[in-house]
Amino acid sequence: MATKNILFIMFDQLRWDYLSCAGHKTLHTPHIDRLASQGVRFTKCYVQSPVCGASRMSTYTGRYSSSHGAQWNGYPLRVGEMTLGDHLRANGMDCFLLGKTHMKADLEGMARLGIDPDSKIGRRQAECGFDAHIRDDGLWPEGPEGFYDPKPSPYNAYLKSKGYQEDNPWNMNANAGRDEDGSIASGWFMRHADKPANIREEDSETTWLTSETIDFIQNAAPDTPWCAHVSYIKPHWPYIVPAPYHALYGPDDVQPVNRSDSERVDPHPVYKTFHSNLIGRAFHRQEVRDKAIPAYMGLIKQCDDQMGRLFAWLEETGRMKDTVIVITSDHGDYLGDHWMGEKDLFHDCSAKVPLIIYDPSAEADATRGTTCDALVEQIDLTATFIEMAGGEVPSHIVEGRSLLPFLHGHKPEEWREVAISEYDYAVTPMRATLGVRDQDARLYMVTDGRWKLMHSEGPGHGAMLFDLVNDPGELTDLGRDPAHAAERARLYAHLHRWALRMNQRVTRSAADIAGMRGRSRRRGILLGVYDEHEVEDDLTRHLQGKAKEDFVSGR
Amino acid sequence: MATKNILFIMFDQLRWDYLSCAGHKTLHTPHIDRLASQGVRFTKCYVQSPVCGASRMSTYTGRYSSSHGAQWNGYPLRVGEMTLGDHLRANGMDCFLLGKTHMKADLEGMARLGIDPDSKIGRRQAECGFDAHIRDDGLWPEGPEGFYDPKPSPYNAYLKSKGYQEDNPWNMNANAGRDEDGSIASGWFMRHADKPANIREEDSETTWLTSETIDFIQNAAPDTPWCAHVSYIKPHWPYIVPAPYHALYGPDDVQPVNRSDSERVDPHPVYKTFHSNLIGRAFHRQEVRDKAIPAYMGLIKQCDDQMGRLFAWLEETGRMKDTVIVITSDHGDYLGDHWMGEKDLFHDCSAKVPLIIYDPSAEADATRGTTCDALVEQIDLTATFIEMAGGEVPSHIVEGRSLLPFLHGHKPEEWREVAISEYDYAVTPMRATLGVRDQDARLYMVTDGRWKLMHSEGPGHGAMLFDLVNDPGELTDLGRDPAHAAERARLYAHLHRWALRMNQRVTRSAADIAGMRGRSRRRGILLGVYDEHEVEDDLTRHLQGKAKEDFVSGR
Repeated sequence: MATKNILFIMFDQLRWDYLSCAGHKTLHTPHIDRLASQGVRFTKCYVQSPVCGASRMSTYTGRYSSSHGAQWNGYPLRVGEMTLGDHLRANGMDCFLLGKTHMKADLEGMARLGIDPDSKIGRRQAECGFDAHIRDDGLWPEGPEGFYDPKPSPYNAYLKSKGYQEDNPWNMNANAGRDEDGSIASGWFMRHADKPANIREEDSETTWLTSETIDFIQNAAPDTPWCAHVSYIKPHWPYIVPAPYHALYGPDDVQPVNRSDSERVDPHPVYKTFHSNLIGRAFHRQEVRDKAIPAYMGLIKQCDDQMGRLFAWLEETGRMKDTVIVITSDHGDYLGDHWMGEKDLFHDCSAKVPLIIYDPSAEADATRGTTCDALVEQIDLTATFIEMAGGEVPSHIVEGRSLLPFLHGHKPEEWREVAISEYDYAVTPMRATLGVRDQDARLYMVTDGRWKLMHSEGPGHGAMLFDLVNDPGELTDLGRDPAHAAERARLYAHLHRWALRMNQRVTRSAADIAGMRGRSRRRGILLGVYDEHEVEDDLTRHLQGKAKEDFVSGR
Repeated sequence: MATKNILFIMFDQLRWDYLSCAGHKTLHTPHIDRLASQGVRFTKCYVQSPVCGASRMSTYTGRYSSSHGAQWNGYPLRVGEMTLGDHLRANGMDCFLLGKTHMKADLEGMARLGIDPDSKIGRRQAECGFDAHIRDDGLWPEGPEGFYDPKPSPYNAYLKSKGYQEDNPWNMNANAGRDEDGSIASGWFMRHADKPANIREEDSETTWLTSETIDFIQNAAPDTPWCAHVSYIKPHWPYIVPAPYHALYGPDDVQPVNRSDSERVDPHPVYKTFHSNLIGRAFHRQEVRDKAIPAYMGLIKQCDDQMGRLFAWLEETGRMKDTVIVITSDHGDYLGDHWMGEKDLFHDCSAKVPLIIYDPSAEADATRGTTCDALVEQIDLTATFIEMAGGEVPSHIVEGRSLLPFLHGHKPEEWREVAISEYDYAVTPMRATLGVRDQDARLYMVTDGRWKLMHSEGPGHGAMLFDLVNDPGELTDLGRDPAHAAERARLYAHLHRWALRMNQRVTRSAADIAGMRGRSRRRGILLGVYDEHEVEDDLTRHLQGKAKEDFVSGR
């Protein structure tokens, strides 16, 4: 198994249900569907935070958001936090990055520890443990106060090399169209979402990164197995896509919105605040959904076509036989469901993601084309990849669990009872609206697959509760229903037990601890001993200074 | 305030109530009492773990045991964890060590980050952030399998320089007496506790470290304020003390044991296991208490005399005027109370410690000689020292709170409602006896000063509960009493809220987060915008590529 490579593909903001294999009625994704038919599709995979940065830092460390602490976009991952790359390299597998991580380097921490950012160690610390073949986070907008992301953009450099003349072709070409008068129609304004992006399809982000991926695999050193994290920015907003994808879907293809008027009657204060924010209000409007969603579908269709191109190339070159392929996303997109836009909260369309794993090994033959409804957390991928690399999962560091048993048709004897996700909204305007302190601007999801509870640390906020069987649309909040107090108590007990979990004892493995047991006595620490006769004779003689005589006399 | 120095004195295993100022009836500690009369004595100071290593790592980082993860003796403090030394140096104060820390370096982590253990950064990482003037953990026993602590012992080197001939004079002189026949009577056997240690009093550990302290202060660079952590091993076992201290106290001076037969009737399984262990059983015996406790008192008396010597020297040299003096301990010692020996659990004699702070500044005049009964955690010292150095407490890292307001007679508007302590017993034999898994071998104390609850993560263990007002001896466990369900629920709610605390978001301060708010919009991230008219004109023009024209036209 250790000789296989891993192609770890992540899309950004791809909803779990926007694939035809997951039941979408008007969006056809035959290439991703085909991978699902060759592997296992996990139907209950939750991300550990419904926001890019925190979710990814969890996936790349195998640890919950509150364990690694990088709980929102732009919060640096603390120096020294162990990553997927650290674990894989320790097991003889390289770990490369092509695309987005949303990693913010802990430069202060690195300086404090004297780590040169230009050294190999420093570069890996700054790139979340990856060897960055290409690092491109895919968000290169600018405004009156400058660039959102001050790093140089490899994608913009590519576009310039292809003859795009704008200062910032990401902003003016890849993510903008043309208005009737020929002027720039920015994709940031959703009314332009039905226009074709101002770019050749072959130069758009998804196609570019796919070409880079093929090129990377072609040139990868054959001797060392690798994990390549191919991490697309799309179908993340701005909602705009190049031709022909801009015209494939229209308002008729948009699925009915999943919301109910009753959701807005005396709602939970956190839910109320989030669905009333700027993007929530925008997605209340049908015209916004009718423009944005067809573009979102077009972006996904393009992703699927590029997967088709990539898989065909892997097939042709025989690489499908030695390459594990994983497809997932970092969170979903409300798209107007539940009166919300964006992500942030924990309804399935936000916190649940697609997860397909294709394992070419013979052990996985029995499960090809099946679905698995076990409760999966995306941090399980770290553990899975470590096992695929031939390693043992360091459970004192990695909080996820390997999915390999499921891939090989063995249900683990003991599996998690609940999945957890967390959200830290201290930076968002919703904190001020809700009037909570920075350190209390936190939300938690706990689900056992049957029920789902959202807890807010905001004072007096209480819980939301959904019955996932009788209300799969999550439209009825039972958080204050006296009839469901027992379910809430049960899920809260899970949350509290999780909150007390051992998660920072990262310098001592179970084996280390076992090795420490009982050792001090034979090294002269005697506790609770009154008299020499109570201990082994050699110990006593040691403490009487007679060990040397014993040595001389051969005793 | 920033120009003052801090003498941060810690004794090891000193019970809160073994000082005459705290009410001990037969042990007189006039020098420590005098410091209390010049400063504030805190009557409810709890350590964050009742075991040396974990307690100290909390005190030296200002963070709970489960936050820093070094949860037992010999668990390395993870590389990069911020320490008192880091915080003080950032505020222009040096931070030195003389004596014990029980720090285990995270050598693996340092190697992973390329940190040379011999560099200045590496040495501080290995010494818990201190500049080690002398590092001596004070436990140098050996047995058939070698030394308990493989490091070189400065104290043993000192003894050899003074003519002690044994290979390991710590074991054979400082912590052993002579039997009737002249052979070594090891202090590890408690029946020898009434013998004088085989050493001149002036060469014993407590006296040696005091001399080193005076020498250090005398030679400290005058330009930079310093914090010196003077950290004695005593009165920690082995229970043996040099003349004349071995003969000052006898069985008649031993205070009545605080235990009750009812404690052993159907006890909490964790409590039962701990009080039935080897050292617990030893301290059930009156002969053990009659030997060990007078020696323990003698060790404390010697500590007090050495404090007298140190304070007199500070007085003479005028240093009392510019030196803050703190006296505390890392945990207590059961000494047979509650049928227990050692520490480990959370009865006051184990988890509560002495804390006296003398602040020479005029602001502290109003509180001299007073006691303070606020709920204090020892992690508060880190915060206090940072404020004394003139710094602002980085509350995203340091979980303790400054005690300066109490010293200056201002009660903070808001203070903690509960104190927390934790204990990880995975390495101890009690884990196997109780049959719990490594990761579940954890105990928590939560007290509001009125009630105290102990929670065990072991399955089905339940809680212990004590009424500190009506049962100050903590002899009646109300953990299963139906009449006290509400108190347990209330303390559990506190524990759970604490468990969910924000404790790893260490790379972003409150100010950093405030600075991030609302920044992305002016850098071109527009969410929930349908139409150009919905945003500021300059933003729109930016997104239309007209900003350059504006610049040229001077718009």
